[in-house]
Amino acid sequence: MADPWQECMDYAVGLARRAGEIIRGALKEEISVMTKSSPVDLVTETDQKVENFIISLIKEKYPSHRFPFVAVSIGFVVNKKIEFGIVYSCIEDKMYTARKGKGAFCNGQKLQVSGQEDITKSLLVTELGSNRDPEAIKIILSNMERLLSIPIHGIRAVGTAAVNMCLVATGGADAYYEMGIHCWDMAGAGIIITEAGGVLLDVTGGPFDLMSRRIIAASSRAIGERIAKALQVIPLRRDDATN
Amino acid sequence: MADPWQECMDYAVGLARRAGEIIRGALKEEISVMTKSSPVDLVTETDQKVENFIISLIKEKYPSHRFPFVAVSIGFVVNKKIEFGIVYSCIEDKMYTARKGKGAFCNGQKLQVSGQEDITKSLLVTELGSNRDPEAIKIILSNMERLLSIPIHGIRAVGTAAVNMCLVATGGADAYYEMGIHCWDMAGAGIIITEAGGVLLDVTGGPFDLMSRRIIAASSRAIGERIAKALQVIPLRRDDATN
Repeated sequence: MADPWQECMDYAVGLARRAGEIIRGALKEEISVMTKSSPVDLVTETDQKVENFIISLIKEKYPSHRFPFVAVSIGFVVNKKIEFGIVYSCIEDKMYTARKGKGAFCNGQKLQVSGQEDITKSLLVTELGSNRDPEAIKIILSNMERLLSIPIHGIRAVGTAAVNMCLVATGGADAYYEMGIHCWDMAGAGIIITEAGGVLLDVTGGPFDLMSRRIIAASSRAIGERIAKALQVIPLRRDDATN
Repeated sequence: MADPWQECMDYAVGLARRAGEIIRGALKEEISVMTKSSPVDLVTETDQKVENFIISLIKEKYPSHRFPFVAVSIGFVVNKKIEFGIVYSCIEDKMYTARKGKGAFCNGQKLQVSGQEDITKSLLVTELGSNRDPEAIKIILSNMERLLSIPIHGIRAVGTAAVNMCLVATGGADAYYEMGIHCWDMAGAGIIITEAGGVLLDVTGGPFDLMSRRIIAASSRAIGERIAKALQVIPLRRDDATN
């Protein structure tokens, strides 16, 4: 049976690769202005929108930094279900892809989560986040304190929600959690996690909600639920809030 | 004039590469036992010691994880001065080298720190550490809280002191600080930082001491001193303690 979304996914992979080239170029050129000068260099309107969006994002968020984790994340959602996901970690040149029911891959290699069930042996990934509200910082750090005190093996933070999640998909880390991110940070990597055998949970331990701005992506339900037990929740405005 | 340590440094680069291959192999083979079977495969006693040391280290510290930052660090110290340093980030295949007075390089490319002097724009790297003593965890997290509240741009933690320091040397991060590490974690990357134009300070803001188990490695003295001002010091037993 033909896969209705395959062509769309292929196009998205190309788009992610293109966006990655733009980002790498921008970082290399010290974020100089980039314009297409030749009329034979065909650029669709969508491409240009993506390009402008990405350049402005880089300019805003990374005025001088070149930390090696910058990713393009594309999640394709139909009727609230993620059909496919693409995360392109462009400095590392790693293309993560997953199609529902077809597995997850990195540069063509099949991915499998660690399956770790013992929290004391687990390596977690999360972020300190960009929220500088003192109350939010306090909760973020006290959550880390509770987890470290279980104890766990360790915590890492590479700076990008999508890359953190992909590291769980590879088995390199055992779980990722964060509060304050957005649906566009999670949709691409979310299906990469589940197709690699992992689970997505809400930070309360309940079902994952793409619009809730919070997530636990774990290599096993046991680890995910143990993390949920340790977390204090930060109040957040949902991505689909109407007021 | 002939450089008295050049041959030694070349040997160390080879050793680092070899050790990196062993680590990559061990990670790939799920850390199976590796023995040299052929008599034509010449292995010096030193090589075997390095090999055994590294394998045991991996088995102990990384029972199942494959987080992409595992590094071989070699620092060559004469009369308490670092003559050259090598850090081989073996999963990324990045060979960082620095020779005193000759600059720092990554895979042959010259490195330069960001030179960032504005703490509010700075990206810091540090670690949560492996100390699970509740008091130490509290100080580590409250130090993060003070820094985040300045505010700073962000904090990352990739899991390896040497790689964190090399990220500062590349300009990817603006400063690294940590307490609880050892001389062997700092000697290799220390000279990579200074040869890339950065500065090493003690966490009190005073002169860096290789045996003190603590460090600030910054892209500028201004940033280094501002971090020192924010840090509460964790009491530690020095690496050269005799009792």
